[in-house]
Amino acid sequence: MARVYNFCAGPAVLPLEVLEEAQATLIDYRGSGMSLMECSHRGKEYMAVQDEAVANLRELLRLTDDYAVLLLQGGASGQFAMVPMNLLPPGSVADYTRSGIWAIKAIKEAKLIGKVNVAADTADALPTRVPRVDELTLTPGAAYVHLTSNETISGAQWKAFPRTDAPLVADMSSDMLSRPFDATQFGLIYAGAQKNLGPSGVTLVVVRKELAKRVPATVPMIFRYQTHIDEGSMYNTPPCFSVYILMLVTRWIKKVGLETLYRRNVDKAARLYAAIDASGGYYRGSAAKECRSDMNVTFRLPTEALEEQFAKESSAAGLKQLKGHRSVGGLRASIYNAFPVEGVDALVAFMKDFQRRNG
Amino acid sequence: MARVYNFCAGPAVLPLEVLEEAQATLIDYRGSGMSLMECSHRGKEYMAVQDEAVANLRELLRLTDDYAVLLLQGGASGQFAMVPMNLLPPGSVADYTRSGIWAIKAIKEAKLIGKVNVAADTADALPTRVPRVDELTLTPGAAYVHLTSNETISGAQWKAFPRTDAPLVADMSSDMLSRPFDATQFGLIYAGAQKNLGPSGVTLVVVRKELAKRVPATVPMIFRYQTHIDEGSMYNTPPCFSVYILMLVTRWIKKVGLETLYRRNVDKAARLYAAIDASGGYYRGSAAKECRSDMNVTFRLPTEALEEQFAKESSAAGLKQLKGHRSVGGLRASIYNAFPVEGVDALVAFMKDFQRRNG
Repeated sequence: MARVYNFCAGPAVLPLEVLEEAQATLIDYRGSGMSLMECSHRGKEYMAVQDEAVANLRELLRLTDDYAVLLLQGGASGQFAMVPMNLLPPGSVADYTRSGIWAIKAIKEAKLIGKVNVAADTADALPTRVPRVDELTLTPGAAYVHLTSNETISGAQWKAFPRTDAPLVADMSSDMLSRPFDATQFGLIYAGAQKNLGPSGVTLVVVRKELAKRVPATVPMIFRYQTHIDEGSMYNTPPCFSVYILMLVTRWIKKVGLETLYRRNVDKAARLYAAIDASGGYYRGSAAKECRSDMNVTFRLPTEALEEQFAKESSAAGLKQLKGHRSVGGLRASIYNAFPVEGVDALVAFMKDFQRRNG
Repeated sequence: MARVYNFCAGPAVLPLEVLEEAQATLIDYRGSGMSLMECSHRGKEYMAVQDEAVANLRELLRLTDDYAVLLLQGGASGQFAMVPMNLLPPGSVADYTRSGIWAIKAIKEAKLIGKVNVAADTADALPTRVPRVDELTLTPGAAYVHLTSNETISGAQWKAFPRTDAPLVADMSSDMLSRPFDATQFGLIYAGAQKNLGPSGVTLVVVRKELAKRVPATVPMIFRYQTHIDEGSMYNTPPCFSVYILMLVTRWIKKVGLETLYRRNVDKAARLYAAIDASGGYYRGSAAKECRSDMNVTFRLPTEALEEQFAKESSAAGLKQLKGHRSVGGLRASIYNAFPVEGVDALVAFMKDFQRRNG
């Protein structure tokens, strides 16, 4: 069986050993005579899975007891609504940084629920970029400050986070656990799992417990963080198999080491950006150099026709899913934690060859 | 590998051939060089899965073009909120039948959003039962009428549905596709997948398109049925692997035939109820005879100590998860579509033996 190099932005490549373990246990989970998909979510098999997932996440994020780790459903798009439903009561204002398509979606949803101030706007900047910390116009007494730590589509990433008086809330869907950071600087972090953490269908929320108490009494039970804190993410039936894969991935991250993964991620990205910068302008990085993403390397070719040809020929060569997001075009190499450096080198070689043939 | 008899109420037993196919494709999905969990949700591999799932559901439910089939996240508990958020605008009233613990949860959530009239209340009846059609006190001009087609915990099931002027909305989580019925009698049907349809993490919603237009403009985009109709359940990244298993299960239902499954389900339930009724009062069915569920057979023993012993000894004999829901106690045999008649016969034999030893 030949594994391809899968540059998909998400759902994305998973560690092979995770898939092998999932395959081995699929029909008979650890001698239970059942698939984990068939096990009661309140039985000992699944509870051990969820408990380990939460413990691994707490350890990897070095969380204090002030924080709850929740495993929910609905992805980041669900959190675009849940965050303001819980944290933006009538009469208050939330500061949002408008840094790209995902931030815009978060803002659009928040505006249906409460008052939003755009604290900085770089969404239309070219090259693409996220705001500098000194650019933020924050509202005194804001309910919270929201940012998108890595814009998956534009390929721009926050390299350091602002210190804010108001609780800092971050959509970390595409760079969660790709680098060490101080989680206690945040009031709430969320991430759809399908980039660095696991398959689609499970959403990680890390929330300061104190903050969850802010929820207005009119919010449905299912959309309150407090409900899921009280019930240990078991208020409704969890997405058990997705949580299982996430648990295996966090186990793998612990084994490799977060610092090691971070060094590997920086190295992988550096190889691609070096290839772009050495191409004499044939390849042009889409993001400003100071915020080039280590996760999503976005670049353009001289013409859209060449971009189309590049995507087609690279796919035929086993370098899959390099086409940029349909909303912006160009090329995008997503190189999350589980993406191997060999695939990066294969892409670099392909880029040189493609330029030689079409330069 | 020995498969146990898994009587779990959900997540529940899946067809073995579905698990075998999922296992075979887990690392390399149909020669793609990727797991389906790693495939883009907009790529041809996943799109074919979702398209087939929706087509199978449309065929099995004999839906007209007036209906949309949505594959969402959040389970029935999510729908307890989404239904009134979409269909219960300020100034209107929804009629709810209060038939058990799941109906009570639906009512509690709806009351946070709008005005609720309890059209019939059998939640505290013993033996457990659902309302008769002639018991409903409906509100003229109600926004909708809500019922729970099968109360998984109490083991009481609607055998025929009321004809209502207002759109009929049903939580069919635990008997969806266990029997043929006229779906066009309903305005909206929802079901968490983890009983008859697949694993946890995906939620089926069938909604009359006209009804989805009723949503107030203040509802977050992610919680509008209209959003998911417009985007073909791709507004956010779907729970791809759960949808894949659901697709395989619907393919299996089509192969076996819904009428055949229904006959099998009625037969399986009849064998258990016959064993209960033939026990001379040693076993007592929890539900009133006219609404005994074909999915969840609930019964009691003379004492709680004997119930405890029964649960323990049956588990040791490979008859798993027979303990009743923690909120009501007793015993419960959940015998969904994929549960084999051999397991029912094994339970009947165990019941006779247990009574002989402890009668």
